[in-house]
Formats: sequence, structure tokens, C-alpha cells
Amino acid sequence: MGLIVQKFGGTSVGSPEKIMNAANRAAEESQKGNSVVVVVSAMGKTTDHLVSLAAEITQKPSKREMDMLLSTGEQVTISLLTMALQAKGYDAVSYTGWQAGISTEHVHGNARISGIDTEKIEKRLSEGKIVVVAGFQGFADGSEITTLGRGGSDTTAVALAAALKADKCDIYTDVTGVYTTDPRFVKGARKLEGISYDEMLELANLGAGVLHPRAVEFAKNYGVPLEVRSSTEAERGTLIEEETDMEQNLIVRGIAFEDQVSKVTVCGLQNGLMALSTIFKTLASHGINVDIIIQSTADAQIASLSFSVKTGEVEETVHVLETYKVELGFERIEFENGLAKVSIVGSGMVSNPGVAAEMFHVLAKEQIEVKMVSTSEIKVSTVVGHADMVKAVEALHDAFELSEQPAGVLGAN
Amino acid sequence: MGLIVQKFGGTSVGSPEKIMNAANRAAEESQKGNSVVVVVSAMGKTTDHLVSLAAEITQKPSKREMDMLLSTGEQVTISLLTMALQAKGYDAVSYTGWQAGISTEHVHGNARISGIDTEKIEKRLSEGKIVVVAGFQGFADGSEITTLGRGGSDTTAVALAAALKADKCDIYTDVTGVYTTDPRFVKGARKLEGISYDEMLELANLGAGVLHPRAVEFAKNYGVPLEVRSSTEAERGTLIEEETDMEQNLIVRGIAFEDQVSKVTVCGLQNGLMALSTIFKTLASHGINVDIIIQSTADAQIASLSFSVKTGEVEETVHVLETYKVELGFERIEFENGLAKVSIVGSGMVSNPGVAAEMFHVLAKEQIEVKMVSTSEIKVSTVVGHADMVKAVEALHDAFELSEQPAGVLGAN
Repeated sequence: MGLIVQKFGGTSVGSPEKIMNAANRAAEESQKGNSVVVVVSAMGKTTDHLVSLAAEITQKPSKREMDMLLSTGEQVTISLLTMALQAKGYDAVSYTGWQAGISTEHVHGNARISGIDTEKIEKRLSEGKIVVVAGFQGFADGSEITTLGRGGSDTTAVALAAALKADKCDIYTDVTGVYTTDPRFVKGARKLEGISYDEMLELANLGAGVLHPRAVEFAKNYGVPLEVRSSTEAERGTLIEEETDMEQNLIVRGIAFEDQVSKVTVCGLQNGLMALSTIFKTLASHGINVDIIIQSTADAQIASLSFSVKTGEVEETVHVLETYKVELGFERIEFENGLAKVSIVGSGMVSNPGVAAEMFHVLAKEQIEVKMVSTSEIKVSTVVGHADMVKAVEALHDAFELSEQPAGVLGAN
Repeated sequence: MGLIVQKFGGTSVGSPEKIMNAANRAAEESQKGNSVVVVVSAMGKTTDHLVSLAAEITQKPSKREMDMLLSTGEQVTISLLTMALQAKGYDAVSYTGWQAGISTEHVHGNARISGIDTEKIEKRLSEGKIVVVAGFQGFADGSEITTLGRGGSDTTAVALAAALKADKCDIYTDVTGVYTTDPRFVKGARKLEGISYDEMLELANLGAGVLHPRAVEFAKNYGVPLEVRSSTEAERGTLIEEETDMEQNLIVRGIAFEDQVSKVTVCGLQNGLMALSTIFKTLASHGINVDIIIQSTADAQIASLSFSVKTGEVEETVHVLETYKVELGFERIEFENGLAKVSIVGSGMVSNPGVAAEMFHVLAKEQIEVKMVSTSEIKVSTVVGHADMVKAVEALHDAFELSEQPAGVLGAN
């Protein structure tokens, strides 16, 4: 007996049939005697449809009106899911973000949750109701509808779990858990039983795509145990919680990768150290996200600077930099498309300094050229040619023995 | 300079292009120096789509969740219309029913407005903003979303106009005004310049379909001048207000008609007067709407009773009555499909007792059999064969000289 928060993403509620399926999941937990709060996203392609409607009206919709528009998506899902639960004989009630008491800062399009008044939800739970809450949305200043931006429904679920002191937050999705790497590309990819918040954070940030980094960070800060699991398969998923002994013997926990990466090099920088901050401030003010940054100094005055961006943003990056060429003070810009980023992640790295070296060794053996490198305490990222991406992931997956079930937890399922 | 409330129905905001057009209408009034509040319905087929989604989940959705679902429809429209106004350079803001302060009784699916807190809207108007409000919806008990049922957006517009003491409420629709009869059927149908609330009420109730009776009643009670006009044509529409001299010389103002009418006769009633109330209570409790009722008494004990219903409800009517045959005490039921109702409306009838007789004379001359008759102070309704419907309307339209411009207001435009 406990309190469970369940979250179903867009693909898990993409049709009336899938909504019925999500209702079954909630009903199962209720049957076990648990109190259940369900958080849902908009149905499948709904958000895309609404965005394209707005695009037919104007290319620059105001963020407030976009929030007004997009927040209807989850409202449709909560009502349908609640109807499904009621049709199955369960007492259930739906709440939008504002009805559920989810306050946010007064920012449109990307608001952060500032507090949750849980009184109403707790009252409904104590009456034995399943409470269905719209993810992704909240309210500010008493009555303004706001949205939380990308990964917003994950964040709603975790924040509600934290505020309600839930025993667990289950993230239902279209995969069965968090894998050592993407199983669509690497045959030996294995589902992890457990992973720490920090590792999940690196994997989430690195494009594993199962769970939004904001939600993981929130869960870490409030100690909410998460489980990523399939909305259609019955099997256990992957538990995300504070560092445990589970699979501790694994130095590398997973391998993330993404393509559509480009490398931009600014050559002949004249302003030395100042250039660094000026260039990235300029790019940031134009909304361009820079990932890996490498500075190589030829002599004290003339240096060059490389960084990676998404390939889709190369053109604007070059345009912005050329516009400010005089102020920034450089000779020329070079760029290389068709690259990919491959990263190994694992909290065991902190105490194993040889991991990066082992990674480079594996890549060298496969004759894969490493074009950029970036490291943190629990990850090493490399930029390689797109053609080498899957080969690199497979070789690393083998070398770090990720396909094998760790001895310590064999049979734990 | 004044305050105008504009209302755009589903077909007038059925596409992004039509929403842009509605924005132009609001902008025009704003340009003239008027304060403008715009009330909108859900886009075209949106409500149907939402209803069919719910039907895929359950055949008996709860009314609360249907309100939650359907109220998203207008929310989409208010955001898109506001974006359109902003794109044209106008300062505008959208409000859902609850944000606009529209309180209703706590009934789902068919709530009545209990009050409007206009403070927020008035503040926005004083800041020079065009305020765009979701029709059809309100809130009860502080945070429960309710809807107003059929014709709800018309009612929202009129109620807002009353609460804001607006100078006028313009109902934009896909016709250019209120006609003497349906111009799709009768060539000589003429647009009326003015009509009284009561006359409009009878026409609205009789299926003219331009404006919901509830809204007309509300407008009458609060003295809100209404104009029904085209959302695409620039011409003046039809003004609806308290009895004026305008066109007063016309005894009959318009002719309404509808088909799909059936006549049901309950023969051999044994319980005399009691049967009347028992039968109609029974039918009402099964949601069957009875229109014209005629009782003919053969002797004090054995009577027969006829009434008209929509043809689509005949089957259930007969089924319900047969189920309670013993309690109701009758011999047999007869019914006749393929009928139509034709009504003449005009407040001048009150002081012209010969109008009904003139109507029967016209129909008799055309050899049209009148199967049922019902009268009120300002209308006479007849039930005729469907094949005679248009012929009856044309003959009456001619006989009461509705095609001709009344002398008193010629050139008033």
C-alpha cells in the first residue's frame, strides 16, 4: 500500500486504444490497494497539429498564446483517460495544471514549477479516487496558463511525486527501460536494472531520450525513486535512484550517441582569452546551443577555437559569427558536417582514471579518428565521423562488456 | 466610441483563414475607436471530433469529463484568434471561461451563467487590449470547468455584453441576417432590417437556426441590442431589439419551417385527464421532446391524444409508450412520418385576430391539408405533409407580402 505517481507520454496515450491500456495500468496499481495519481502528455501528434495551426496564422506567435493553445492537448488526454477509468468502474477525476494547484514562475513556454498545492489531490485520493493530472502545464499569478517546455510532463510527474511524498514515480514509455545503448543500433544492448540519478542525467543529456534531464534532476534533488518501464509490456523496467551497490562493478554503465553533429573552428583569434566569452555570449544571444568546446593556443596572441553544434544550426552559427567578425576579431571560420558524438557514461569512472584511455584505445584499434573530446567525472564524449558512429558504439559496448549480466545481480529479477 | 461584443460561431472560425477574417472584423471595430470583446466557438468540426474520441472510449462518458474535453475546443480558437490580432499589430489577450470570470451553476453539460466578474476584462479593455473570450464555457465552485450546452457561445456573448454594459452585441455567422424565411428554399425571401426579441425567439425556437433562443431570451431580459450579420460580407445585418416602429406595419414578420416531423396518436385513453400528464412525464423522463399537442375528447372517458415529435424519435416514443401500456391505459398507438411544420411569426398578430384564419385560407387554396395546429400570441404553427412544405411556405410568403420592402423604412440603409 502506497502512493504511486504514473506518467504516460504522448506515444503511450496516442489513440483511444492506448488510453484504455494506460487506464489498465492505473487500475492495476489501484487494485493492489495503492493510491494512484496519473500524469499524462498530449496524445501523440496533437502538439504538432496545434503548432502547425498556429504557424498558419503567424510565424511569430506570442508565447502566452502558444501556452494557451498547447495546454489544450493534455486537457483532452486527462478527460479521455478519466472516462476510460470510469468506464472500467473506477472512481476517477481529471485536473488541468491550474486545477491541480501546480504553480510556476510567470514565464511562458518554459516555466519552472515554483510550488504545488496538494490539498485538493490529497482530498480526492483519500476519497479513493484515481486523480488524473495534465502534465506539462501549470499556472502563474493566480490565473495565467503556463507550460513547462520540453520534457514538461516528466517534470510534472516527478514534482507531484515529490510534493505528495509518493513512494514511487513510474515513467511509462514505448521502451522497456534504460539500455546500455540504443538497442535499435546495437544488438547486444542490454536493459539496465538500475542506474543512478547522475548517470541517468548524463545519458538523458546525451540524447538517450527516455527521460528528460530536468525531471531526473528534480528526482535527484527530492530523492524520488523513478522507474522507466513499458506501457505495453509487463516486465520490470529500470530503477533510477541514489547510488546503490547494484551493478557497481560496472565502470561504464551505458553508451549514448547522436548524429547530426558539426564542428566549427574559428581560426586566427586576435583577442585571446576575451574572444572565448564574447563568441559564446554572441551565439547564446542568438539561441545557438554549443556543446563541446576546444581551445588550442598556437601562441599567446593568435589562437583557434573549435566547438560542436547541431548540424541544423551550422548555417546560422557561421552567419552570426561573420556578422560580428570585426568585433570578435578572427581571420576565418571553418566547419565540418557529417559528424557524430559517442559518449560512455558511468559513475565508476571517478575512481578509474584509465577509462578514457581505454576508450581511445578501443577507437584507435578500430581505426576511428577522434575529432574532439570532452570529459566529466562520469562520462567521456568523443566526436567521430558519422560513418564510424555505430562501429564505435559497438566496439565500446563490447570492450566494456555491457552485454553481459553483472554477476552480482544475476537472477535478481 | 463604445463597447462592442462580437461573437463568431464555429463556421466563422472553421479554418486559420477564417480566423484571420474574424480578426479583421475585430480590428475594424477597434480602428473605429471602440473597445472590443470577441467571443468565439470551437473551430468548425472540432467538437464533433472530440465527441467521437470520447465515443471510442465509452458510450457513457461522465458529463464532467465531457466538459473538460469539449472546453478545449474554444480554448484553441481564442489562442489562434489572439495570435492573428497580434500578428496584425493589435494588442490582444485571450481568456478561457474561468479566466474571464464567467461563473455558472454547478451543472455539467448544460449550466446556466450565474454571474460574471468583469474586473479583469475591464482592466484589459482600459489598457487598449482586444479581449478574446472562449464561448460556451464557465466555471463553478471556484475551479470546476462547466459548459453551457447548445447555443452556449451565443449566450456567453450576450451575457458578457449585458455584464459589461456593451453598446451592442454583434453575432457573426454564415448568413447575412435574419430572413423572412429560408432563402435556400424561397426565392423571394428578404433580409429583415429589424425584428423584436419575441419574434426572434419564436423564429429561433422554430428552427431558423441563426441564433440560439437562450441567447435571445437573455438579450431581451437585459435589453442588449443584437445584430446578426455575415462574417464575410460587409453589408448590415438584422437588428434585434425591443419592439420598435420599424416594419411595424407587417403583421407577419417571418416564416419558419422544418421537416422530419412525425405525428403520434395514442388512441383509446382510459384515464382521461390524468393520462395527459402521465404520458408526457413518461416521455420527458426518457428525453423525448414533444412539440405540438392536441387532445380530442370523444366522450368523458375515452379520448385520443396526438402530438408531434422529431421523426428520429418516433421509434423510441412508441417503444416507451408500449412499455408502460398498462399503467398509461390506452388501446393502441398510431403514427405518421413524412410531415413538416410551417409557422408564421409576427408580433402584429396579437392585435390581428384574423391572421390564423388567413393562413388556413392560403393553405386550403393550395389544397394543402393541415394535420395539426398550434398557436401562441405571436405565431401560428401548422403541421403539413413534407411534400407540401415548400409550397406552403412560398404561398404564405406571397400572401403576407414578405418579399416587399416595407414602405416605412425604404432607403433606411
